[in-house]
Amino acid sequence: MKKWIPIASGLLAGFVAATISFADFSKSTNDQVASSNTKSDAEKVYVPFGEKDDYYLFASGGHSGQMFIYGVPSMRHIRTVPVFSPDSATGYGFDEHSKKLLGDYTWGDLHHPAFSETNGDYDGKYMFATDVGNSRAAAMDLETFTVKDIINVPNTSGPHCAAFVTQNTEYMFLPTRFAVPIGSEYKSLDDYSEQYRGVMSAVTFDQNKDKLNIAYQVALPPWSYDLSDAGKKSSADWAVMTTYNTEEATTNLEINASQADRDFIVLFNWKELEKMVADGQYDEVTGQKMIFPEKHKGGIYLVPVAKSPHGVDVTPDGKHFIASGKLAPSMTVFSFEKAFKAIEKQDFAGERNGIPIINYDSIMEREVNPENALGPLHTQFDDKGMAYTTMFISSEIVKWDPKTGETLDRVPVQYSPGHSVAAEGDTVSPDGKWLIALNKIAKDSYLSVGPSHPESMQLIDISGKMKVIQSSPVNPEPHYAQIIKADKIKTIEVYPKDENNKLATYKQDQARIERNGNEVHVYGIAMRSKFIFDAKAKRPDVIEVNQGDKVFLHLTNTDFDEDITHGFAINQYNLNMEVQPGQTNTIEFTADKAGTFPMYCTNFCSALHQEMTGYFLVKPKN
Amino acid sequence: MKKWIPIASGLLAGFVAATISFADFSKSTNDQVASSNTKSDAEKVYVPFGEKDDYYLFASGGHSGQMFIYGVPSMRHIRTVPVFSPDSATGYGFDEHSKKLLGDYTWGDLHHPAFSETNGDYDGKYMFATDVGNSRAAAMDLETFTVKDIINVPNTSGPHCAAFVTQNTEYMFLPTRFAVPIGSEYKSLDDYSEQYRGVMSAVTFDQNKDKLNIAYQVALPPWSYDLSDAGKKSSADWAVMTTYNTEEATTNLEINASQADRDFIVLFNWKELEKMVADGQYDEVTGQKMIFPEKHKGGIYLVPVAKSPHGVDVTPDGKHFIASGKLAPSMTVFSFEKAFKAIEKQDFAGERNGIPIINYDSIMEREVNPENALGPLHTQFDDKGMAYTTMFISSEIVKWDPKTGETLDRVPVQYSPGHSVAAEGDTVSPDGKWLIALNKIAKDSYLSVGPSHPESMQLIDISGKMKVIQSSPVNPEPHYAQIIKADKIKTIEVYPKDENNKLATYKQDQARIERNGNEVHVYGIAMRSKFIFDAKAKRPDVIEVNQGDKVFLHLTNTDFDEDITHGFAINQYNLNMEVQPGQTNTIEFTADKAGTFPMYCTNFCSALHQEMTGYFLVKPKN
Repeated sequence: MKKWIPIASGLLAGFVAATISFADFSKSTNDQVASSNTKSDAEKVYVPFGEKDDYYLFASGGHSGQMFIYGVPSMRHIRTVPVFSPDSATGYGFDEHSKKLLGDYTWGDLHHPAFSETNGDYDGKYMFATDVGNSRAAAMDLETFTVKDIINVPNTSGPHCAAFVTQNTEYMFLPTRFAVPIGSEYKSLDDYSEQYRGVMSAVTFDQNKDKLNIAYQVALPPWSYDLSDAGKKSSADWAVMTTYNTEEATTNLEINASQADRDFIVLFNWKELEKMVADGQYDEVTGQKMIFPEKHKGGIYLVPVAKSPHGVDVTPDGKHFIASGKLAPSMTVFSFEKAFKAIEKQDFAGERNGIPIINYDSIMEREVNPENALGPLHTQFDDKGMAYTTMFISSEIVKWDPKTGETLDRVPVQYSPGHSVAAEGDTVSPDGKWLIALNKIAKDSYLSVGPSHPESMQLIDISGKMKVIQSSPVNPEPHYAQIIKADKIKTIEVYPKDENNKLATYKQDQARIERNGNEVHVYGIAMRSKFIFDAKAKRPDVIEVNQGDKVFLHLTNTDFDEDITHGFAINQYNLNMEVQPGQTNTIEFTADKAGTFPMYCTNFCSALHQEMTGYFLVKPKN
Repeated sequence: MKKWIPIASGLLAGFVAATISFADFSKSTNDQVASSNTKSDAEKVYVPFGEKDDYYLFASGGHSGQMFIYGVPSMRHIRTVPVFSPDSATGYGFDEHSKKLLGDYTWGDLHHPAFSETNGDYDGKYMFATDVGNSRAAAMDLETFTVKDIINVPNTSGPHCAAFVTQNTEYMFLPTRFAVPIGSEYKSLDDYSEQYRGVMSAVTFDQNKDKLNIAYQVALPPWSYDLSDAGKKSSADWAVMTTYNTEEATTNLEINASQADRDFIVLFNWKELEKMVADGQYDEVTGQKMIFPEKHKGGIYLVPVAKSPHGVDVTPDGKHFIASGKLAPSMTVFSFEKAFKAIEKQDFAGERNGIPIINYDSIMEREVNPENALGPLHTQFDDKGMAYTTMFISSEIVKWDPKTGETLDRVPVQYSPGHSVAAEGDTVSPDGKWLIALNKIAKDSYLSVGPSHPESMQLIDISGKMKVIQSSPVNPEPHYAQIIKADKIKTIEVYPKDENNKLATYKQDQARIERNGNEVHVYGIAMRSKFIFDAKAKRPDVIEVNQGDKVFLHLTNTDFDEDITHGFAINQYNLNMEVQPGQTNTIEFTADKAGTFPMYCTNFCSALHQEMTGYFLVKPKN
């Protein structure tokens, strides 16, 4: 076993010092950067009207709960897609479909996005994401850029990283960031090691039914699980996850979770786990099929790695996985092939919590320590298999060769990159060309907007010597992102007519209001430039109900034209819904306030949009 | 009286045709635009790292309820400032202060932003905005870019346009977009003309107390009030507002509100109205001082104008106001001086609803009809007093001289501009240089994100011949915007220590948990990279309470360093709060779920951010 090299003595104090000194660092690098931004950089990122970006960037919105879509290379923010938080702009969380998806939750913490894959390559069909805040997972359809399903993930508290699916989207694995007692029961922290577990969930997605499902869970030791990646090609049945706090500390993790020289990578074979579940090798716990590794042996192994690693990334050829040190200055390259052999030969150095520990020296290919590069967090790849690692502390991207460990290039970024994302950089065939640094600190970079600063992304041209060519302020908070070729995504522009949808109303003369006791169902139409709720009424754009009535408005946008979205709101009734071209959407509410309330289209739709109004009249109870 | 010129016969059908033909229009103009986007355009909008934008753009977020801040000329989106809707990213609507500001509302429709002014020029202190969805007004402080106050505006249903303050921010006037019965009471639409009113609110802002207040209201006729502007210099005591639906139609406004050849501009003297209120010339209605013009005479006049005008804009010299036709192809220039004389001489053509109508011919300077320019909506100005009018139907900006009516230049935009905004373009001293078209339709402009498209802004260089030099997809929905010189805004970067704040905890050893019955007050600290809730406890980062306890967490960020914001969340507890550097913030909630719940910092703050965690333990009731 090699000796682990800590970054420096006084490590933790050092981080603070490093953070404080960013301003100075900025000063010294500003000049270089400014002078290197020549005219051609401006041209490279400029996409004039009439042309389009080459790539989509899907960026995690962190505690915004949403997904942000940008164009690359322009770095223009095209769209916010609401995922885990309500969204006033689109009525997400207001209409019936999205209200059910969100349940009672009004915020989320979207961490890691992952595209669906076919043969290890992005197929442009779906995007998945996890919510660390309220322990959920979501699937977004890329025909419409809307969320199709959200599930709560029990026992897994803060599913931090689903930024990987297996190579044909069989599973996404949601490792828990926080260990909790099974079922989140109340248990003393004094009994942490015995009573808390770090549960990983194996989640499937049914593309026919647009449904997420928990296939099984694994009750790992009570550690924190961080980043992860799926194997590719020869390692396709395997996946890897980093851990920290294998010390099992219960307070002041800043110090106490950084005591041991090493933590582990969890290496597991999901085909084997799947088979174990099929063979009944699990316990039924809180309604889940749960594998307890100390009891149900096989399929899971530990790989020792320098303390508190952050990222672990599989090379495009599927032959190696690379751990980024975070609290150690190394990137460590491991061989899958050697790991398989070690497992076969039971080349183990004991076990932890009933899980075999593979001998480090048997599978480690090399430790890579670029000079003065501090805080390696995450690695991406280019089309030649070269690796790009973000350095949080020394605020740079280091390009290096995983086959030799040689440092090839370095570029400063501003400042403190967490993740980076390369064009299709975690697939079997990265594109090269672009890398984007997802920076955590933006100070002094943009016009000040008060004490709370934007985050920042920087676009790096990696076609030759690395160069930052565009800096973009971004919404909080880009934890990870994915870049996909634009032509892989095939959207629809208009929802097709669905004659089987009983809630839809396509013909003006069929717009009607049906009353059933105190339930009022409105089958309405939104079209340029009017609402029709009751075709036969004296005022077709008026809805009159009694105070206390339950109102169901089923609204169909009969403008089957691109970009003609209508909105629907009732003044002072705190509700807003969107109907996209051709779409039928339902909103349900109780008419609890008596009085006269204007209704109007909230989404500019024509020159007479201002006139697209009506009245909602609520007759008082007495 | 002149004859009004309709745009064309079959006008309404024509709008639809115009919309459908955008794609063709795009085709024919793409070539011109593409070829005119030369290298220098890329350079003009490119702001490399180390440099900053010259202007801030504050754009209305429409039905998102928020304000969007962009840099000009880069058009980079720097920040979303939450105003009328909750915001998961910043915990707006979750912490006590912002929860009170929002009340029970979970969405808003932010229409028109307006900077505070001193002597008719932006002073960079405050930004005001209105909510059409739930009838509110808000004031944002530009030291911190946070909302300081929100008020509900009774009787005014959909305060559409507050995009103007008087020249020393004495008032902003909120005309109602929708007429409703006073108090929004239930009244039959058959009695519309008698029972409904179009109430305008005069709102003041106390800069010492950061408080909005309704000074008085005016019960105007039951029409729709649209855009407005305040006088300047010699017209400083006056303001103007456009109207539509002076037909007083109650259904199908698309047709019925476009019947009459003319609508009106409301011209009023706010100093006179103020004096009337001081003299008791008002009724007390629903707790408001309400002027009824048919009863309390003076100060308000009607100016006839071509049907359904949209914008009305005062020239920088304060001498003229210009109405944009919307349903007529004209911009009409009126003289304030002539209006004052007409009023003095009682040069009236009768009255409507007790309000005198000024003779059109007596004050109209000229009607301007650029050839084939259709759908004029809104006018901005440059440093030479030239006017720029958006043409919604013909999708272009027309530059013209208000003094002669001569058309000077035209540029196509993509597509359907509603408003435009020039650099400081509605002040007494516009900057020239930049104009931004706020387009309603973006189809085919950007990478597709499904049936719902982004809106689009286009930056136009107006320093010479007008040229679109950047196209930017934007969040929904830019109704209006303001551009201010960057150096006018003086932000703070860190909240100063406030020793008088009893909820703040600056010293680590003073972090404590105090229990009072079933109320638990936590005086906690967030700092790189830990939480301290109870300095004396075995685990200072743990909070333990009983199920059903009411918890008040007062959290102080003791990192007085730029850009070190912390977040606070409890997993599965659906709450998220932000504490900016130096700030103390309180969140209040009931511990209704028993169990073990991780707490964590949601806002990346240091290399050990992942370790900035704790546990929230809730002991079950039984």
